[in-house]
Amino acid sequence: MKLVRLKTRDGIRYGVIKGGAIYEVQGDIFEGLRMSGRSFPLEGANLLPPVQPGKVVGVAYNYREHAQERGLRAPKEPQLFLKPPSAVTAPGSRIPWPPLSKQVEFEGELAVVIGRPAKNIDMKYAQDYILGLTCANDVTARDLQLPGSQWALCKGFDGFLPLGPCVVTGLDYKELQLTVSLNGKVRQQANMGDMLFGIPELVGYVSRVMTLLPGDVILTGTPAGSAPMRRGDEVSVEIGGIGTLRNTMG
Amino acid sequence: MKLVRLKTRDGIRYGVIKGGAIYEVQGDIFEGLRMSGRSFPLEGANLLPPVQPGKVVGVAYNYREHAQERGLRAPKEPQLFLKPPSAVTAPGSRIPWPPLSKQVEFEGELAVVIGRPAKNIDMKYAQDYILGLTCANDVTARDLQLPGSQWALCKGFDGFLPLGPCVVTGLDYKELQLTVSLNGKVRQQANMGDMLFGIPELVGYVSRVMTLLPGDVILTGTPAGSAPMRRGDEVSVEIGGIGTLRNTMG
Repeated sequence: MKLVRLKTRDGIRYGVIKGGAIYEVQGDIFEGLRMSGRSFPLEGANLLPPVQPGKVVGVAYNYREHAQERGLRAPKEPQLFLKPPSAVTAPGSRIPWPPLSKQVEFEGELAVVIGRPAKNIDMKYAQDYILGLTCANDVTARDLQLPGSQWALCKGFDGFLPLGPCVVTGLDYKELQLTVSLNGKVRQQANMGDMLFGIPELVGYVSRVMTLLPGDVILTGTPAGSAPMRRGDEVSVEIGGIGTLRNTMG
Repeated sequence: MKLVRLKTRDGIRYGVIKGGAIYEVQGDIFEGLRMSGRSFPLEGANLLPPVQPGKVVGVAYNYREHAQERGLRAPKEPQLFLKPPSAVTAPGSRIPWPPLSKQVEFEGELAVVIGRPAKNIDMKYAQDYILGLTCANDVTARDLQLPGSQWALCKGFDGFLPLGPCVVTGLDYKELQLTVSLNGKVRQQANMGDMLFGIPELVGYVSRVMTLLPGDVILTGTPAGSAPMRRGDEVSVEIGGIGTLRNTMG
């Protein structure tokens, strides 16, 4: 099932995509879906980020080749960082260029959306706490990512976390392929099964540090190949089975 | 004015402290205060963290002596990090000992609570965006704060951010004194006027990175003297004009 969040004339609503239409959900999507009976055409819908997370946990160096390109060994434990919820932006939106930076890079990734409160979860049961998966772009001001620095600055600017277009339930992440393109040219490609720490391990580990709540997001890490963008560039993060998250830089 | 948040029989409410009583506020405290007419005795009230922030921005090394004790020079720009909202805990609560750590330290600080949306604010006008000030303890698992690591882990555990007891409006932070005690013995003491980056600069700087929203919290940094706690220790963060935030470790 493909879940979206959209702006309607009556306010913000969740919906389910079926064929070319969005079927409106009553209330939120975390307590079971109750349909309102209304529907909208998918084309031209004003899609928002599919969830507005209360927190966003990133995982650094979760692919061997990406760790290598940063001059690091594969980590022994998941390396966690946080992005502020204010960084989240919609599919199709423009990512504002932050005046403090001269080098802004894309990092395409698979994102996990939490479905119910998760604290000290055994990885065996992690699946029960996941609502679904979506595409993310962990945009990073590389020139502000200095040795020894905390990443709240370089990864925290408004608009530095495109999410969407939809949250898809019931997928096996190991079967998914990620393709990131800049102006139509492929720049990152990976099998999600190649993550160093898989999704059940990540949900289990993070939930032992901090309680995860419905709508919270875990970014599973970017593979090799992230690169700078220029003003006006179009970046797309495509994951088979989910869809394509397209944004424009600056 | 001293603002609190508390659990009542009818749910969670904001209130204003006056004398020995809490006067209940209708709705939230960010759109002007409307009093309900009800009041409760302050003694025995079930105080919650005075706000539930959507994000918490910390500032590292904001006192010269604390930077020195960590072997660092005074930074040229504010060094930002994030704590997850799930770390926030109430005055009087127990901070759970995280099994992943063997060395947990207190870091007493002054916290700024944002009153209205702030984006690209000039420091001259920062005061207009601040609701008030409160006490905070930026609890840190020092043994997990490794060189080159991101601090989401060492500072992100549930309960690692006691906040309160109240948010006080209209204070001049430069006049405030902070005293942190462990089991009644003074361990940290500082004049808030000794911060390297003052509150207007911090609000201005952070707002140029990420949009601040009502209830968001900026932790202004800890002075020298943070130290390990043992299970059962009582830690108190006292700021004259605000009050005392007391918590028990483990």
